[in-house]
Amino acid sequence: MPDLSPDRIARLEADRVVFLDQRRLPAEEIDLECTNAAEVAEAIRTLAVRGAPAIGVAAAYGYALAAQQGEDLDEAYRVLAGSRPTAVNLVWALEQMRPDPSPERARQIHADEVERCLRMGEHAAALFEPGTRALTHCNAGGLATGGYGTAVGALRSAFAHGLLDRVLVDETRPLLQGARLTAWELETAGIPHAVIADSAAGAMMARGEVDLVVTGADRIARNGDTANKIGTYGLAVLAAHHGIPLYVVAPTSTVDPATATGDAIPIEERDGAEVTARFPARNPAFDVTPAALIAAIVTEVGVHRPPYADSLPLETAARL
Amino acid sequence: MPDLSPDRIARLEADRVVFLDQRRLPAEEIDLECTNAAEVAEAIRTLAVRGAPAIGVAAAYGYALAAQQGEDLDEAYRVLAGSRPTAVNLVWALEQMRPDPSPERARQIHADEVERCLRMGEHAAALFEPGTRALTHCNAGGLATGGYGTAVGALRSAFAHGLLDRVLVDETRPLLQGARLTAWELETAGIPHAVIADSAAGAMMARGEVDLVVTGADRIARNGDTANKIGTYGLAVLAAHHGIPLYVVAPTSTVDPATATGDAIPIEERDGAEVTARFPARNPAFDVTPAALIAAIVTEVGVHRPPYADSLPLETAARL
Repeated sequence: MPDLSPDRIARLEADRVVFLDQRRLPAEEIDLECTNAAEVAEAIRTLAVRGAPAIGVAAAYGYALAAQQGEDLDEAYRVLAGSRPTAVNLVWALEQMRPDPSPERARQIHADEVERCLRMGEHAAALFEPGTRALTHCNAGGLATGGYGTAVGALRSAFAHGLLDRVLVDETRPLLQGARLTAWELETAGIPHAVIADSAAGAMMARGEVDLVVTGADRIARNGDTANKIGTYGLAVLAAHHGIPLYVVAPTSTVDPATATGDAIPIEERDGAEVTARFPARNPAFDVTPAALIAAIVTEVGVHRPPYADSLPLETAARL
Repeated sequence: MPDLSPDRIARLEADRVVFLDQRRLPAEEIDLECTNAAEVAEAIRTLAVRGAPAIGVAAAYGYALAAQQGEDLDEAYRVLAGSRPTAVNLVWALEQMRPDPSPERARQIHADEVERCLRMGEHAAALFEPGTRALTHCNAGGLATGGYGTAVGALRSAFAHGLLDRVLVDETRPLLQGARLTAWELETAGIPHAVIADSAAGAMMARGEVDLVVTGADRIARNGDTANKIGTYGLAVLAAHHGIPLYVVAPTSTVDPATATGDAIPIEERDGAEVTARFPARNPAFDVTPAALIAAIVTEVGVHRPPYADSLPLETAARL
């Protein structure tokens, strides 16, 4: 039985941080042990641990580990903050840790993320009706959040309430987080699912096989523009064309009050060899979905509707 | 230097049909030798040879081989016609061969396809302006047509006329015909290109990096609705959203007068294991793009504009 408990996904021990290595899933469940902040940063950079909330948790554990080991904390902050360019959670978690770099604080950040997911799941489930057929992209699952998941958490909660018929899972090239991770999580949760090529989503919508699209987010601007895995924007345009709602599920820590609109969100361009090593390639890791294409954003606070500049919670307990 | 001559792609010898095995490209250039019609049908079924015009050529060679070998021609017709469900060219080519199953007739069908591509290329080039940045999907190239190509032929002609800046190539999951075959053909032709994940097309359009989209077609209904590789429909919706024209380039043999609209086109559902062997999967090989989303259809006759019911050539020399 696969173990998706928060401790299995990431935990701090006396002299190391231990992650379930997401690059090896679903073929193998292998622990990755990091013994200093630089190794944690490398685990984040190489996607052994990925997903905006989970890399915040990872950075918190990495910073607590650095403090435990007597490392230079300014250097640990710098190397951890620089491990991925897009996710705001990374800096957010490090800012939480700076005044109190204790193991307890890091574990509390982790527990808070899981608790927020459970609340998001309950709020999001209200958007489902009996028999809903959902489509999701990438992995906004327990692996991405440290437990339960955001978009996958919404699917879990909806399924638990008897409101979810089945899930189409975009395989999510180039790294196949959908085909590898989300499908594995849904299998673990006993939720009926089928993986599709990313390019099949439009045809599935045209056939009437999709009632809603649900994704996570890497960063949400103050106006609701949302950066997420490359392909989310295309799904949003397709969903709008078919009159299908697209919902974004993400913790308030993903909402960046300092970012007015999506134009200000830097987009990470990753190594083209992830797409093809044989020919020239372009590999933007994220795209920005304009708020106008998002039917609702769900946080742990509730369901937020446009205009998001008015409805999104910018100052919550999590930020204080 | 890779060899993309028509003879290299498919040829009939005394006792066999020889194909460049497209499944092995670009890593290896290997000949596949088929010694009877059933083996040719298997080559078509397993995508060793693929692309609507090329499988018409392959079926013609397979039928001529069957005649040469003294096989039962009704059985050869049946097995070749049944090798792929969507492409109308298969049955079209076999109908051409039935009254005259000679090697010369098959070679003429092949030469005619290449000649048509050259004409299509010239017509399509008129749709390009200096500096055009194009996006294409799948492989509507010389490999798919027996030489030169339809959509790739358009790119070749535009490039020869100094009208093409560069091409974004959708990798085209699940079989990666773009990342494997189109990129290889463009490299061979010296045309600047970059492969992208299929899901990155929307973001590239949003950034203003795409001036036009050009694809081939597997079947075109009388009203212009076009079946093509899965993902074409999604591209068409995205292109329309961004005000970017989508052009379909295909020989008149792809236009099926017996098919009134796209609703009547059967869509092949291939083995889900092409997407993922580890989890349940859905794998439609094609989708249908409504005529309303197609800015022009280019055949060897010329550039056809909506309404296609009036403009598409239904009876041409190729059909008589």
